[in-house]
Amino acid sequence: MGMLKINMNKYKCVLSYDGTNFSGFQIQPEQRTIQGEIEKALMVIHKGEPTPIYGAGRTDAGVHAKAQTFHFESPFNIPAQNWKKALNNMIPDDLYIQSVQRVPATFHAQFDALEREYRYFVRREPERDVFNRLYAYHFPYPLDMNAILEACEYLQGEHDFTTFSSAKSTVKGSKVRHLSVVRCIDRGSELEFIFRANGFLYQMVRILVGTLLEVGQGRIKAADIPEMFAKKDRTLAGHTAPPHGLFLWEVSYPNTVISQENP
Amino acid sequence: MGMLKINMNKYKCVLSYDGTNFSGFQIQPEQRTIQGEIEKALMVIHKGEPTPIYGAGRTDAGVHAKAQTFHFESPFNIPAQNWKKALNNMIPDDLYIQSVQRVPATFHAQFDALEREYRYFVRREPERDVFNRLYAYHFPYPLDMNAILEACEYLQGEHDFTTFSSAKSTVKGSKVRHLSVVRCIDRGSELEFIFRANGFLYQMVRILVGTLLEVGQGRIKAADIPEMFAKKDRTLAGHTAPPHGLFLWEVSYPNTVISQENP
Repeated sequence: MGMLKINMNKYKCVLSYDGTNFSGFQIQPEQRTIQGEIEKALMVIHKGEPTPIYGAGRTDAGVHAKAQTFHFESPFNIPAQNWKKALNNMIPDDLYIQSVQRVPATFHAQFDALEREYRYFVRREPERDVFNRLYAYHFPYPLDMNAILEACEYLQGEHDFTTFSSAKSTVKGSKVRHLSVVRCIDRGSELEFIFRANGFLYQMVRILVGTLLEVGQGRIKAADIPEMFAKKDRTLAGHTAPPHGLFLWEVSYPNTVISQENP
Repeated sequence: MGMLKINMNKYKCVLSYDGTNFSGFQIQPEQRTIQGEIEKALMVIHKGEPTPIYGAGRTDAGVHAKAQTFHFESPFNIPAQNWKKALNNMIPDDLYIQSVQRVPATFHAQFDALEREYRYFVRREPERDVFNRLYAYHFPYPLDMNAILEACEYLQGEHDFTTFSSAKSTVKGSKVRHLSVVRCIDRGSELEFIFRANGFLYQMVRILVGTLLEVGQGRIKAADIPEMFAKKDRTLAGHTAPPHGLFLWEVSYPNTVISQENP
């Protein structure tokens, strides 16, 4: 049953999903997962042969993606557009593959990623909105926006993010990450937080958002952030904002990974 | 266990819901319904005493509401704002009560309604959108907008809508209704249909939308609509557009039903 690894074709896929009804990205027994649904479709296409996918990163239950990225290998040399059609016809409608691209055999969706961008939406209107409840965190409390913007500046740059990651993080190595973008766009009824980094620790974005909201409420001082970094203590940061406001927005790669449609 | 009908207070409630996970508005055994969930909360508040609600109209499974209206009676004379808080704390998060208002004992949410407004959203972009899939009908085919606008004019006014209602309609009396508004707003990537009438027949809006889209595709001629009305034959109209694009948008009442908060 084993497939020879010769003449394998590698494909990079950009995927969006509504995370509401998934137990996260990573495959788990007895759970409905994004990886599980896509590998199920790929296994049918490959006539029962398991075809693993490799994502740029994992997302938790309830977290959405506008543009997650994964790669897979196949003995089938099929035009990218046909892969896109075939896969979209087979996967459930809370998943959608935006694009498929042939890439060199050396490409890896996780290890080649330069930066990941996450966005987090906070709804501030006093009334609940049933149509938005799965896609934004309802936080109808007064916020000092100047304090939040000040805190964003303290967070930007290269830091050890131990304080701002889950104690359950399984990362063994360095917890130093470079946050190249930390922005908060105030639309009045909605806040949009934007985070770009070379990598994120477990629950880091949700803890950063929870912390920024507590800065806005005056519970945490923006100027204390440098000391919070130094102490490497999760209990100093704010609460973990809920998963449903979070979107994996984009994963960027060096331009060189783009290869021709039919090389 | 019976409650005396003396000193009953009547309340009018405006309700929004995401219809996705409901088997429609009307209570049904073993089904999750909007009426069922609200009556469950009211029964707890009334210490086990059943408290029926009366909606302005029923909606099918998957149909949403921005502003459905219902009334109920209670022996409790509680300020409207407190009713709103208490009910919203008890109902699931795909339901939300926008407002509660005390009304005269003669008020009836169904019989006093002057007009109902429904809106229907059609997504025209070629690509699927996982975040919009439950709230708009994806119809990415070319449409002749002028033909659709012409058909809207033929539909407006007083007509017998037998042709444009489900054969399963249980209405015994007249099927003449007055459509005071039939509009189609073209936003490029999205169409928004607006229908206002003194009443609607079973599946009438969804059949009107299906018909208008087929007019846009050239399958049905706008100028044939008068003859379609005359023939009273459902098979002449277009397909029934799916429920998830449909929103009960507003129910209007004479101003006189508004009473003081604490009369």
